[in-house]
Amino acid sequence: MTDAENFVDELVVDFEPLGRRARVAPGATLLEAARQAGVGLNAICGGAGTCATCRVRVVAGEVTPPTEAERDVVAEGLRLACRTRVLSDVRVDVPPASITAPQRAQIEGRELPVELDPAVRTFDVAADPPSLTDLRADATRLREALQEQHAVDVSRCDHGALCQLPALLRESGWRVRLVVRDGEVIAVAPVGTSPLGLAVDIGTTKVAAYLVDLESGETLAASGRMNPQIAYGEDVMARIDYAMDGEAQARELQQAVVAGLDELTRELCEQAGRATAEVVEAVLVGNTCMHHLVLGLPVEQLGLAPYVPALAYSYDLKAQELGLSLAPGASVHLLPNIAGFVGADHVAMVLATGIHDTEDITVGLDIGTNTEISLAVDGRLLSCSCASGPAFEGAHIHDGMRAAPGAIEWVRLVDEADSGAPRVEYQTIDGAPPVGICGSGVLDGVAELRRVGILRENGAMQPGSHPRVRGTGSETEFLLVPAGEQDALRDVVINRRDVNEIQLAKGAIRAGIDVLLEEAGLEEEQIDRVVVAGAFGTYLDVDSALAVGMFPQLPRDRFVQVGNAAGMGAKLVLMSRRCRAIAREIARRVEYVELTTHPHFVEVYTAALMLP
Amino acid sequence: MTDAENFVDELVVDFEPLGRRARVAPGATLLEAARQAGVGLNAICGGAGTCATCRVRVVAGEVTPPTEAERDVVAEGLRLACRTRVLSDVRVDVPPASITAPQRAQIEGRELPVELDPAVRTFDVAADPPSLTDLRADATRLREALQEQHAVDVSRCDHGALCQLPALLRESGWRVRLVVRDGEVIAVAPVGTSPLGLAVDIGTTKVAAYLVDLESGETLAASGRMNPQIAYGEDVMARIDYAMDGEAQARELQQAVVAGLDELTRELCEQAGRATAEVVEAVLVGNTCMHHLVLGLPVEQLGLAPYVPALAYSYDLKAQELGLSLAPGASVHLLPNIAGFVGADHVAMVLATGIHDTEDITVGLDIGTNTEISLAVDGRLLSCSCASGPAFEGAHIHDGMRAAPGAIEWVRLVDEADSGAPRVEYQTIDGAPPVGICGSGVLDGVAELRRVGILRENGAMQPGSHPRVRGTGSETEFLLVPAGEQDALRDVVINRRDVNEIQLAKGAIRAGIDVLLEEAGLEEEQIDRVVVAGAFGTYLDVDSALAVGMFPQLPRDRFVQVGNAAGMGAKLVLMSRRCRAIAREIARRVEYVELTTHPHFVEVYTAALMLP
Repeated sequence: MTDAENFVDELVVDFEPLGRRARVAPGATLLEAARQAGVGLNAICGGAGTCATCRVRVVAGEVTPPTEAERDVVAEGLRLACRTRVLSDVRVDVPPASITAPQRAQIEGRELPVELDPAVRTFDVAADPPSLTDLRADATRLREALQEQHAVDVSRCDHGALCQLPALLRESGWRVRLVVRDGEVIAVAPVGTSPLGLAVDIGTTKVAAYLVDLESGETLAASGRMNPQIAYGEDVMARIDYAMDGEAQARELQQAVVAGLDELTRELCEQAGRATAEVVEAVLVGNTCMHHLVLGLPVEQLGLAPYVPALAYSYDLKAQELGLSLAPGASVHLLPNIAGFVGADHVAMVLATGIHDTEDITVGLDIGTNTEISLAVDGRLLSCSCASGPAFEGAHIHDGMRAAPGAIEWVRLVDEADSGAPRVEYQTIDGAPPVGICGSGVLDGVAELRRVGILRENGAMQPGSHPRVRGTGSETEFLLVPAGEQDALRDVVINRRDVNEIQLAKGAIRAGIDVLLEEAGLEEEQIDRVVVAGAFGTYLDVDSALAVGMFPQLPRDRFVQVGNAAGMGAKLVLMSRRCRAIAREIARRVEYVELTTHPHFVEVYTAALMLP
Repeated sequence: MTDAENFVDELVVDFEPLGRRARVAPGATLLEAARQAGVGLNAICGGAGTCATCRVRVVAGEVTPPTEAERDVVAEGLRLACRTRVLSDVRVDVPPASITAPQRAQIEGRELPVELDPAVRTFDVAADPPSLTDLRADATRLREALQEQHAVDVSRCDHGALCQLPALLRESGWRVRLVVRDGEVIAVAPVGTSPLGLAVDIGTTKVAAYLVDLESGETLAASGRMNPQIAYGEDVMARIDYAMDGEAQARELQQAVVAGLDELTRELCEQAGRATAEVVEAVLVGNTCMHHLVLGLPVEQLGLAPYVPALAYSYDLKAQELGLSLAPGASVHLLPNIAGFVGADHVAMVLATGIHDTEDITVGLDIGTNTEISLAVDGRLLSCSCASGPAFEGAHIHDGMRAAPGAIEWVRLVDEADSGAPRVEYQTIDGAPPVGICGSGVLDGVAELRRVGILRENGAMQPGSHPRVRGTGSETEFLLVPAGEQDALRDVVINRRDVNEIQLAKGAIRAGIDVLLEEAGLEEEQIDRVVVAGAFGTYLDVDSALAVGMFPQLPRDRFVQVGNAAGMGAKLVLMSRRCRAIAREIARRVEYVELTTHPHFVEVYTAALMLP
């Protein structure tokens, strides 16, 4: 050690769970570090300490003490990145809600600690080379060495692994690592190679994948991308229609998602400096339709009452059968589905959030085009699905768009001190010039318009209630951004029909919650906890959701947003056979409640359409 | 019934195991019936009752009593087809040796009766259709129905079968037939469809296949064809060399044989009026190299000492993994190999001939380019392999050819009453003009040349010993057919080098037998039975083989020729799980004797080269 090394020029800041790293001078703010690391932290106020959107959790290391501006966030165990300066190497946890949309590839989620116990196990084996007095076949030789050296019996060697066996044995001097799964040797690798696992959440819109080292349990890489099936229809019904056009079309859908998974796997393996052929197990979750489409199962019956799946129980098959390019003997595990519209992704979400195992009365929601809801009470698990529609993804909205740069993702109407009309504040993704509005922006907008009295309870927009309200009747609209402001190329508005779309969407979710409560004989005040997960659920503003009546009016601290819980559930199942068994148990226990035929649904739904 | 039907105009003659039928007038000979049915019975004398080559067994029905010419064959339970006239409908069994070569597609073999107990079982199941109060998934519904209606538990439904399930259930009104194998539903079919099985013997030269109804045990069709890999090399070593050229070449070999199997399956299914998608299980046997090539396993190590297989134990995989076009969930079973040059086909042969289970001291041989030999004594099974070479298939012989029309398949030197030089008699396949000589013809020729003293013990041809002997030294040759005789386009000869090839081939076989006897501490007279099977073994003349010293000098009645015993073994294993277990037990029990490194082999081999 030289003297020079006692002077610290550079500190390391690690951002998790994104896995990004910055090297900064002592005294730099976490926001500066985040920018350097390419972590897109929210910062509406530009780092002035006033908007409180750059919240992070300091997990390890030394930083400057909290400032007055951070009083509220410190109470939540958080800090404002723009107010916090690093004094040593630091590890920072970035909550999903603090990240701007393009980086919110729906791959973040709260990780539960889990004891590593994957379905595959590895054993290093040294075999005697064959000789004239020992003519045992390669497979027999290895099987017997495995028995002698590890007391492990296998009944089979996978065909793909078998094909690689003779060359690898001879190249390695008869010392190899065997990957064993369920009594079968599924892969053979050089000694020292840790087996990889892949956990994937196949959403209707997005696919999130995690590459896990199955020996250390470490997540080596995570990434998300669009589901390539999007080209064949935005929602589940459009895909079912397409698949029903013929066998070729159904095959096309299957191959599209498999090609997407292959690309994602290549990308993750490149990031981790590993080979796709080292991935020996994949766990897939998705809604029932995505589950069926990736398996190449018919989906026709999912589109027709009574909407029964072809397959509900958990399923294992070879990656090769799906056409996935992993290790030749790799297997794929699919979690069980519950019903036609409550799929394996919801099971994974319940597992990851621990809803099935809580004493609290808990509502868990996975909000998307289709929203799955579970209610846990006294050991019971009631689940339903409601068609919340694509409004939260920016579809069917006048100026709606996906969460992409230039989308307005945050809206506030700020009361002016001089008692003029409330001023419009907003944030676009990446701070780009406004081009449209994404789901969370529309929800915020509707909540704010209602809060300041521009919208009536029934959603009607009151002419003259604000200078930005223009038009009449069903043509009434609110001007969010006039063309030219912040370089906007055109006006961005929220109109009467947009409000209506949000009412239908949030009403469906609320009605689902209410019907489950009714089935369980509960009042809404009895709910201890509401766990919000999924694509949109992660990034919505809970206050806005409460303001429009999407959720029961409960204290804010009963709500928790957990990120991509389905993906986290897939990872748990990848890493733990115990979790795999629990997932099966969850699916078995769930009491499915069909909303469309529920006697009170229409009544409950109608009431839920109102804005409080 | 009308009066006219009391008068029989036509009798039906069924030829087995070929499955051919003739309709003839009462009093027609069996030879006439055979010609009408297209059964190529041998008949050197043209039906004059003198050559005794048209031997058949009358299994059922009434025929004329034996004639004086049949005295010897009747003692063996046979009749001469040319001397036997039909008096009623008749069923006739045709021994392989009585059939001319082109029909000897190596698909005939002695069938052992076996209790039908295939690996697949079928169950008819009626399920309740789904309703709003019964939303079980299709797969769950069927699994539960199977449990309720047949007390059968399955843990899995094959992916291919699962893909067909939803449509078939709905088309069939929720009544289907499930094919179950080892706790897995592997196929779903309309009620009433019997599952099919395929037994295949993949020879280096020829492939023989049998289509079996797995519900009745009936063989619906049988067929043989060349192994398409022949285009890549005639023998095992040539194929190993080709496969070692690269992965693409190895894949080419695998795909060639799979394409051939697919064609054969289509042909068999067409014959039986069934669909290839109804074949739910295939059993494959072959020598170790064919076994590895069809599985796509590396063969490099089979070509290098100590010649160990990659895989020896019995193996099950999905037909899909091999690229075979059977039922989507069909499985393939491969019998165990014993060593690099004693393969699954020999295990099947031992099984089919019952050698493993006899009190007699028995030698079983499967003669081909490579000859596998087993010796059963006191519950022991000793096996070896010897490189008998391709001479018996007509290769490396001056005028050699495969057993095809125009090949001389039978040679006799007949002593003339007037004590002139023995006269040459021969038969060509199909009676076509002679164009060459096939393996059995060369063997006959050498045996006869030795018998009449033209050849010395060491194989030298004695100039001047017969008018047909011409040339000198190593160029000496015997003129079998002069150009022009019987429309022969050119001379057909047997030369000194041909004799030498036969000496090497038969010497290898004899040395193999002798080494096994030595290992077991036996004298050759103690052998109770010699079972001869395989391509060439079925059609060789045992007397000629004895004359050249290929076999120990035992009484003729200790020899039995059993046809394609490997194919029969495959069929047994297809039809019976018990036989499958026995095959595993046989492979386990065999004591493999490596000849190339045996201390006495060279000595024994040298002695075996002599002509007695």
